[in-house]
Amino acid sequence: MSQIVRHDPSPILSRAVEYNGMVFVAGLTADDYSLDIKGQTAQVLAKIDKYLAAAGTNKSRLLSALIYVSEMSNKEAMNEVWTAWIDKANLPARACVQAQLGSSKTLVEIVVTAAK
Amino acid sequence: MSQIVRHDPSPILSRAVEYNGMVFVAGLTADDYSLDIKGQTAQVLAKIDKYLAAAGTNKSRLLSALIYVSEMSNKEAMNEVWTAWIDKANLPARACVQAQLGSSKTLVEIVVTAAK
Amino acid sequence: MSQIVRHDPSPILSRAVEYNGMVFVAGLTADDYSLDIKGQTAQVLAKIDKYLAAAGTNKSRLLSALIYVSEMSNKEAMNEVWTAWIDKANLPARACVQAQLGSSKTLVEIVVTAAK
Repeated sequence: MSQIVRHDPSPILSRAVEYNGMVFVAGLTADDYSLDIKGQTAQVLAKIDKYLAAAGTNKSRLLSALIYVSEMSNKEAMNEVWTAWIDKANLPARACVQAQLGSSKTLVEIVVTAAK
Repeated sequence: MSQIVRHDPSPILSRAVEYNGMVFVAGLTADDYSLDIKGQTAQVLAKIDKYLAAAGTNKSRLLSALIYVSEMSNKEAMNEVWTAWIDKANLPARACVQAQLGSSKTLVEIVVTAAK
Repeated sequence: MSQIVRHDPSPILSRAVEYNGMVFVAGLTADDYSLDIKGQTAQVLAKIDKYLAAAGTNKSRLLSALIYVSEMSNKEAMNEVWTAWIDKANLPARACVQAQLGSSKTLVEIVVTAAK
């Protein structure tokens, strides 16, 4: 049986959980709510890089991504930052929908799953 | 090849599906829509316990959770019930966003994935 | 270590990703936005069939589905098409919530995960 490894717990969640050759990363948001959609997206993607690295993997091994934007009108600008960041030879399955997020100033939240 | 085991089918879905050392639990909601957010959350978490047990696992082996609240203003009260229920030594990756759910009286719906 | 196989890339995502005996399919939408909810659902499910086949599997091996409808009032009609399509002996875990989608004319988007 594969062991479960949990990373960086808050009181309610782990930021990443490893199991069975996969890494499940929590829904991540920017720390600086004053940033615009591009700035917030960059902060979220940097956090994803950090948690993937902590689990011994990286963005070239992403399997899936679920992106929430608080306003669909921000999708295009979010995609610009995503496109600059993502490994174009190794694109994950992805969905992007609009949802109100935990703070009214949070513009984007991203959940990813990766292979180890 | 690992076998797929399906639990408690409705006409449109299985409440839980086992495969490859993992359990995928359907989006679960409270049966009693008259309950407030704390009561509905408690009912949902009790159902999750039940389906994890049916698949031979339990909340200490949760990998990820996706929580939908119909009003983000209910998140704090939902989190109180979540925090009392969750295994603090074994926290899943988690995201919580607002979404309108299947019934206008449904206040919370939770999807989890667990290791067996 | 299991190899990652990616299918049908767009500039930002792969429509399907295989890993570890599983297939992660991207959020799929209808190409013809002029269709009603039943027509759009049928187009989405046909695409899911196509990507599952490309990964060497089929709907009898679905593990989970996440369905977004832009209006919850369309859920019942979506479910009629879903019910006619799904393998009743092999139902996936499923959640269905309302969310605004990438285009204002997109009525339904579906994300599935399947076993190979």
